[in-house]
Amino acid sequence: MKIEIIGRGNVASHLAKALSTKATVATVNPHTLEGLNLQADLYILSVSDSAIREVAEKLASILGKNMAPVVHTSGTTGLDALKAINGRRGVFYPLQTFSKDFDLDYSEIPIFVEGSDPYTTDLLKETAELMTKHVYEADSDKRRSLHIASVMSCNFVNHLYALSKQYLESHDLPFEALHPLIRETVRKACSNDPAKVQTGPAARRDMLTINNHLSMLKDDENLKEIYEVLTNSILNVYEWHII
Amino acid sequence: MKIEIIGRGNVASHLAKALSTKATVATVNPHTLEGLNLQADLYILSVSDSAIREVAEKLASILGKNMAPVVHTSGTTGLDALKAINGRRGVFYPLQTFSKDFDLDYSEIPIFVEGSDPYTTDLLKETAELMTKHVYEADSDKRRSLHIASVMSCNFVNHLYALSKQYLESHDLPFEALHPLIRETVRKACSNDPAKVQTGPAARRDMLTINNHLSMLKDDENLKEIYEVLTNSILNVYEWHII
Repeated sequence: MKIEIIGRGNVASHLAKALSTKATVATVNPHTLEGLNLQADLYILSVSDSAIREVAEKLASILGKNMAPVVHTSGTTGLDALKAINGRRGVFYPLQTFSKDFDLDYSEIPIFVEGSDPYTTDLLKETAELMTKHVYEADSDKRRSLHIASVMSCNFVNHLYALSKQYLESHDLPFEALHPLIRETVRKACSNDPAKVQTGPAARRDMLTINNHLSMLKDDENLKEIYEVLTNSILNVYEWHII
Repeated sequence: MKIEIIGRGNVASHLAKALSTKATVATVNPHTLEGLNLQADLYILSVSDSAIREVAEKLASILGKNMAPVVHTSGTTGLDALKAINGRRGVFYPLQTFSKDFDLDYSEIPIFVEGSDPYTTDLLKETAELMTKHVYEADSDKRRSLHIASVMSCNFVNHLYALSKQYLESHDLPFEALHPLIRETVRKACSNDPAKVQTGPAARRDMLTINNHLSMLKDDENLKEIYEVLTNSILNVYEWHII
């Protein structure tokens, strides 16, 4: 299989690395498209969301009516961003944050694929299976749901860490002291159903501790609101309310 | 050093295991106190928070005026729960969740100590250093702040995982697909300042995506409120508001 990866960013270079042992992979500069192989089996457009349409138009003018699918790698962009493409289109979305300087185990990365037609969907599945065993079909709606869930489980979680660090440091305590507990929480949640390993004052309906915490947070409206909303949400699981 | 650990729970047995290669450790049934060594150097009371006072009273009646410190292991209980003790008192608080069936690397666990006097504080530091390099002094106020931070970074985080799992499954998607991203988020947050590696729609002020997400969540008041509060909190870091 011959794959052309159009892009120069982190996702493009990680995809090239992950696929290069299993397929013939070339990377192409998205600004010039210089050296593009017109006989490839698959074109993966890995550029920023806002550049997809423009690069797709440029690509379409070179490829003409293409038989080989053209796909993008964005989780938040629909298939219609590739409407300039006069042929098969798709999405090849790896759900991971790619850092330049950190090696990832590609076989653990889930890849979500969508094709404009069955041939494309199958080709994308086969391509994804070259690098990982976690391959799923997902249309735009499902990718949007995934995105919301990753905002909750990653962006919001990271923000809670940032707030905890700030809070601890304002009390002369190091955030590092929480690292082992943070890691153990994640290990437990990813090897069980997280709802079943929920601990803490709200899960055990410890209203005394909850009210103590709220009074300790009374001068920090933001932390207090977050504490209340998440505590109520945990209590709701048990059909129980504090406020 | 001779250490008597009074308790039969997870914390008691993990502490006994962690200290047994470095000290002479015996564990004692908290109900009977049978076989208690009256010549020990340290008594660690590792029982449920609500049982500390009662067991301390029983212990005081056997020890009389003790020279060797008596300490409890609770993060949420003050030194005064040991007021029955006629002598040195303290707190020896390991910040970790202990499961029965999972081996932990004790050298990574932070231990927070407090003594009623300098002799006790020093003894507790030395004891903690037998099992870990992460030893801190923390009085009741600091332990309470630690507890709030661990509620935010562990209990609330686990709840966000539980909500994400429920949300994904209601959209026919597996929570497992998020595991690699969740693990990578934690790895990044614990090897950097989490505030500096914040990603997601709120961090990049992507109001279009935020409003799309809010409209997708419009039938789930609980998720919508959590999404709003945490998004606003991230935006606040940049002095920016949506709602």
